[in-house]
Amino acid sequence: MSQQFLLSLKQDISCIESDEPDRLILQSSTHALTFKQVQSGLKTALRTLADGGATLSELSQMVEQDGGNFLALRFYTYLQRFTHCGWLCHSALAEGMPIAIAIPITADYQFPYTEVVVESRYVLSRFAYCHSVEGQLVLESPLSRSQVLLLNWQGAALVMQLARPQSCHDILAAVPGISLKTVQQLIGLLLSAQMLSEVSEDGTIQEQANTTLAQWEFHDLLFHSRSRQGRHANPFGRTYRFLGKIEPLPAIKPRMSEEAIALYKPDLEILKTTEVSLTQILETRKSIREYGETPIAAQQLGEFLYRCARVKHLKQEEHGEITRRPYPGGGALYELELYPIVNRCEGIDSGLYHYDPLAHQLYRISDRTETVGALLQNAWQSMGQQGMPQVLIAIAARFQRIAWKYESMAYAAMLKNVGVLYQTMYLVATAMGLAPCGLGGGNSDLFAKVTGCDYYAETSIGEFALGSRIQGSSLPDCESTIAPRR
Amino acid sequence: MSQQFLLSLKQDISCIESDEPDRLILQSSTHALTFKQVQSGLKTALRTLADGGATLSELSQMVEQDGGNFLALRFYTYLQRFTHCGWLCHSALAEGMPIAIAIPITADYQFPYTEVVVESRYVLSRFAYCHSVEGQLVLESPLSRSQVLLLNWQGAALVMQLARPQSCHDILAAVPGISLKTVQQLIGLLLSAQMLSEVSEDGTIQEQANTTLAQWEFHDLLFHSRSRQGRHANPFGRTYRFLGKIEPLPAIKPRMSEEAIALYKPDLEILKTTEVSLTQILETRKSIREYGETPIAAQQLGEFLYRCARVKHLKQEEHGEITRRPYPGGGALYELELYPIVNRCEGIDSGLYHYDPLAHQLYRISDRTETVGALLQNAWQSMGQQGMPQVLIAIAARFQRIAWKYESMAYAAMLKNVGVLYQTMYLVATAMGLAPCGLGGGNSDLFAKVTGCDYYAETSIGEFALGSRIQGSSLPDCESTIAPRR
Repeated sequence: MSQQFLLSLKQDISCIESDEPDRLILQSSTHALTFKQVQSGLKTALRTLADGGATLSELSQMVEQDGGNFLALRFYTYLQRFTHCGWLCHSALAEGMPIAIAIPITADYQFPYTEVVVESRYVLSRFAYCHSVEGQLVLESPLSRSQVLLLNWQGAALVMQLARPQSCHDILAAVPGISLKTVQQLIGLLLSAQMLSEVSEDGTIQEQANTTLAQWEFHDLLFHSRSRQGRHANPFGRTYRFLGKIEPLPAIKPRMSEEAIALYKPDLEILKTTEVSLTQILETRKSIREYGETPIAAQQLGEFLYRCARVKHLKQEEHGEITRRPYPGGGALYELELYPIVNRCEGIDSGLYHYDPLAHQLYRISDRTETVGALLQNAWQSMGQQGMPQVLIAIAARFQRIAWKYESMAYAAMLKNVGVLYQTMYLVATAMGLAPCGLGGGNSDLFAKVTGCDYYAETSIGEFALGSRIQGSSLPDCESTIAPRR
Repeated sequence: MSQQFLLSLKQDISCIESDEPDRLILQSSTHALTFKQVQSGLKTALRTLADGGATLSELSQMVEQDGGNFLALRFYTYLQRFTHCGWLCHSALAEGMPIAIAIPITADYQFPYTEVVVESRYVLSRFAYCHSVEGQLVLESPLSRSQVLLLNWQGAALVMQLARPQSCHDILAAVPGISLKTVQQLIGLLLSAQMLSEVSEDGTIQEQANTTLAQWEFHDLLFHSRSRQGRHANPFGRTYRFLGKIEPLPAIKPRMSEEAIALYKPDLEILKTTEVSLTQILETRKSIREYGETPIAAQQLGEFLYRCARVKHLKQEEHGEITRRPYPGGGALYELELYPIVNRCEGIDSGLYHYDPLAHQLYRISDRTETVGALLQNAWQSMGQQGMPQVLIAIAARFQRIAWKYESMAYAAMLKNVGVLYQTMYLVATAMGLAPCGLGGGNSDLFAKVTGCDYYAETSIGEFALGSRIQGSSLPDCESTIAPRR
């Protein structure tokens, strides 16, 4: 099989002729390999690799012209090296024309040749996906170190058929105008690129039999592989890719309604000296899902928001505004916005509010409509149907605040920021003698609908439930209890 | 165009004949609609919808047989209601056979009919992706409320062509054996399902011109739409889908080496009464990326790990082991594992270690090899190339601990847990007078390679840098400074 693939170097690798006659340099944007004492046949083969490629047998013939087996061996060593560098592409051919090409997306590349048995059945990996990237249909997978470009409709038709277990003959019967040789080559290419899984004779799909992989969901593994460094070649981190093209968002979201409620500000200097220790609070922190008869008061909600999430400082920097807040936030961008959904709070009407962290005010967005009620209901279910949160704080992200600056890891950073805020809220609530609970999920579409936010510009990615504690409640799971501050 | 789609109800909806002659019930797993005073033509049309479907003109003919226009209007109202319920599927036909079907995946469904202009060009949305779901090739998109099943190779071939802007005639010329009518129908279906974007006459792709959408990356928006509730019908939350099939992982990871280092345990009772207040620490917390001459000591690292991440309590529950630790963790599953990578630490040799949170010990995994050095180097770059972390704590996740229990939101929950741990580490480090910094990215493949972990079973998803502070360093960005505890 491997004899039949078209071998070529990645497009960004150029072949440079040296002034010295038997020397040749292959150069990528980051590496250069210099070849010395290169005979003319070997030179032709290397040049061909960099300029459109050829099959292994064609390349071998070029090399052997003036050197025989020894040079061919040397050439094979080069090919291994190109593979390891992530330089060597493999194409499947139909009637001599490439119909799919596997391009390495990492160094430390592997492309293990696998024999395609005509009678065997193969199936597309549950993790492989096709999508359009810069005008080309690309097959990718978090299991793979290749990106496979599908160059014409036959490649796509074959991938389509492989959605369920298929032998070469099954595909031949279903897709018109495709030869057995082409089917074999394409399956071989997809197998080597780890886009397929073999089906055992008893019908077991090998990928499914792996209990570790079986527990990964498609969207989770895809996201993991692309939001962390390693198995991709995408830009990563602070790239500022929209600089000069799209304006960055301001640090403070414009006010959402005319109806403002000023909030209580605690005296932090007094708290600093009178409050109990971090260790005391950290060691007694726990999730509480049941609430006291007397609900949380407006003053407590004000103190809580001030201590967790107010803007301490607003600053204009080279690339836009940043702020300082009590919790750490990636790049000081603070994309998270807090929306208290009030069920029962002494002094604040039930309904939906937005917290302005600079003015330390609440803006009233909505009464307690049916949809607002549905958000509370959803949280109650998510918390195991114990108490209805007195205040549910929906945490939304103004996504573009962070995506404007960071690439590949923007959404992952936002979720970490949500976690950072959760723990800040847990500790402040514990210090204040309130009942805190961070939630694992919520409905972002419902949130966008209620607030009138554009789902793609800002919607919820976290939820935190808050309320008063049951009077005199013991805290059985804690190692020690903490005396509430008030 | 809309006249030509085959209309049908979702497969899980059954048509039940009532005992009363002019009554019919349509029933899904969650809802039932009862139709009263149903004439025989209307009955035939409803039955047909539930049993394979027909085109709108065919259905109208059935209805009009015995009622004329009035009944046809009533039938159209029903169709709107079915759309709103997320019951109504649309299929594109080729020679009378369905080649693609758009299935609603949410209630509040929309399928806006859009005229396909033969001369206009269309292109696949950057967010649409094909993958194999239970033996079928499915086109999905976070922008869409449909799932489009591609039923034969022609659908896949057409999607392939649409990776770049194409008119109906472009596609006709490229894909053999497909009629203009079929191309138009398929494009119409994909447009209504929001899988395509129109291309303006000047070549602008409408989706790209939207600056909000332009800042979303493919993997981020896909993950967001699937890990939050709203625009999908997948199971969500605690589903225990592997119960009885795969054993849950134990709470404590088996020790990774024979070489153990016992760690210092602080006296928490003393800390509780002598340490400064939460507010004092919260208000002075900041990221510090430069380190003191004298490195962090083994005793400090021991105290830090004990206060942040030790196991306080291990318990066997119905569905496996859970633990209590100082920071909150979803479901008390605590999937996160800490791997201190020691650059400079008084009393602990440079190298890679695993923290056992139950025994409160470090297990030595590796010397400071080149790859271990690369992890430190990577962190240093990520932190803006200031000081090299004295200890880099790589935070890995034993993914299956949490994926075994939770569905759809497992990975999102893990990232929130990382954030929770970051803030815990920030506060404890601040209290201890150490220099803390949470990082935004790292190399999971490199981590798996160094530790020998299976990338799919456990690898890094967070990084936290730690070290001693520069002696007498001022903290310019803080509102006040905190006297270090020692």
